[in-house]
Amino acid sequence: MTEMEIERLAKIVADNIKNDSVTLAQANKLISLVMKKAEEMGVKAVVAVSDRHSNPISIQCMDDAYIASYDIALNKAYTVTALKMPTTDLKKLAAPGGDLYGIQFTNGGKIVIFGGGVPLYDNTGRLVGGLGVSGGSEEQDTALAEFGGSLFKKGL
Amino acid sequence: MTEMEIERLAKIVADNIKNDSVTLAQANKLISLVMKKAEEMGVKAVVAVSDRHSNPISIQCMDDAYIASYDIALNKAYTVTALKMPTTDLKKLAAPGGDLYGIQFTNGGKIVIFGGGVPLYDNTGRLVGGLGVSGGSEEQDTALAEFGGSLFKKGL
Amino acid sequence: MTEMEIERLAKIVADNIKNDSVTLAQANKLISLVMKKAEEMGVKAVVAVSDRHSNPISIQCMDDAYIASYDIALNKAYTVTALKMPTTDLKKLAAPGGDLYGIQFTNGGKIVIFGGGVPLYDNTGRLVGGLGVSGGSEEQDTALAEFGGSLFKKGL
Amino acid sequence: MTEMEIERLAKIVADNIKNDSVTLAQANKLISLVMKKAEEMGVKAVVAVSDRHSNPISIQCMDDAYIASYDIALNKAYTVTALKMPTTDLKKLAAPGGDLYGIQFTNGGKIVIFGGGVPLYDNTGRLVGGLGVSGGSEEQDTALAEFGGSLFKKGL
Repeated sequence: MTEMEIERLAKIVADNIKNDSVTLAQANKLISLVMKKAEEMGVKAVVAVSDRHSNPISIQCMDDAYIASYDIALNKAYTVTALKMPTTDLKKLAAPGGDLYGIQFTNGGKIVIFGGGVPLYDNTGRLVGGLGVSGGSEEQDTALAEFGGSLFKKGL
Repeated sequence: MTEMEIERLAKIVADNIKNDSVTLAQANKLISLVMKKAEEMGVKAVVAVSDRHSNPISIQCMDDAYIASYDIALNKAYTVTALKMPTTDLKKLAAPGGDLYGIQFTNGGKIVIFGGGVPLYDNTGRLVGGLGVSGGSEEQDTALAEFGGSLFKKGL
Repeated sequence: MTEMEIERLAKIVADNIKNDSVTLAQANKLISLVMKKAEEMGVKAVVAVSDRHSNPISIQCMDDAYIASYDIALNKAYTVTALKMPTTDLKKLAAPGGDLYGIQFTNGGKIVIFGGGVPLYDNTGRLVGGLGVSGGSEEQDTALAEFGGSLFKKGL
Repeated sequence: MTEMEIERLAKIVADNIKNDSVTLAQANKLISLVMKKAEEMGVKAVVAVSDRHSNPISIQCMDDAYIASYDIALNKAYTVTALKMPTTDLKKLAAPGGDLYGIQFTNGGKIVIFGGGVPLYDNTGRLVGGLGVSGGSEEQDTALAEFGGSLFKKGL
């Protein structure tokens, strides 16, 4: 291995260690792209990004978005990192009759069980954060979250 | 009765009075055995043990377990001692249409109504604590909790 | 080595490096050492370790510890990672007249402003978690937390 | 007597010994005595008794007592068992400048730091529960709680 190869190797390792989560710059870029899409769809969205440890990084509310959407988007970003699944998957598990019916009551009101939240994976497949969208219909919020998750995976 | 018999009698009585609950040493031993089993099953579990008065004794999170599992395991251990039944029994009662539907809302978010929690009985059948497991599927959590409860009953 | 080989190698190395936080094994070892010291001091302690993202890893209650100490130890471990300072430092800042008087009300009751919590730094100086001790006088809890933090820094 | 006979005997004795906490009958008797005294003093009191594990046993509100007194009396009974001291002692520790200033914020609003709560000790000195009184001035609540604690210690 040449000196340069070693340096490159060290740098990649260091970057991988340092960036186990979404950065603020990435979060804001993602939010602005999701909001642009929301605007096209006529949705006034609140968009939240958390790091992979369920702590929030950036939450932004489009002008005149629902007041309730702040909590919902924040909690969607919490849910998807705390349980490592999209809220649409949890929706099935937490429905009456589902295996995890009742999980919506176990974490101090922070578990959201309807669409609009997706875990964020980087282009190597690592979980690095969570995205929560609230403001439109469940279908719209889900579409926006999936749009954002897909963009993020490709690399913003 | 001989002097020795009296002493032995007194000691057993005293031990029964003093240890009405799981001790920390027992809790930690139980947790490590449940975690060993979880590892074999490929589950990253959070395992919680409470005393029989629903106060926590020990809670431990396997590396990279779900963040949400902390509250869930803790609340399972609370639920099974506070209601003296496994969470799988409560699941039926608390389902829509069940006799106790709604109990999941009555205790400040501490009642869990899906599998993974069992009361701990000692080898004389006394309730002495609660065990909560979270991290796998409901089936896996239930299996792990029952495994732990069964080990405990036999004497760790 | 090709570029792809380097990237692959780097990824494997990064993945294999222990995560950026205290592990459960480290937390449990630290807790048992702090409890041994507490026992020598005649203190029935609750000892909590959180990861550096303020999520709990392990909390254990010595037999007959104060019931209130569970929340206090847990919240100390939260506070020191959430604010990156010992609770004795925060004590001064949060006292009436202090710069941050009032911070004790801002985080849903999770900020503790008296001694017994220290951030955990590894032997390279990185913040990797938090330690919270409750059960004795403030002086005792502080001594126990500092003892634990110092042990941890040296390498358990 | 055989070993088995001894064990069986011990078990029966232990089971027959009153549990380690105040019973409902004792709690109600204590409450009625404290309320009689409150009436003499012109105080409309809420009186709460918890077991020694901080779980409530009986809470009763005199006609037209303060609505807020329910929570306060309940939390006083919690505090004195969770911290094993009268709320008048905690008052000093939790005052600005005190060692435990801030403890009033650490347990989800359940810690009361003014007079009116005392631990209940039986006539052998064992902690068996907690008494919380609210409804009068601090001085009156403190006097009523101490009156109750003293009665209880002598044997109701």
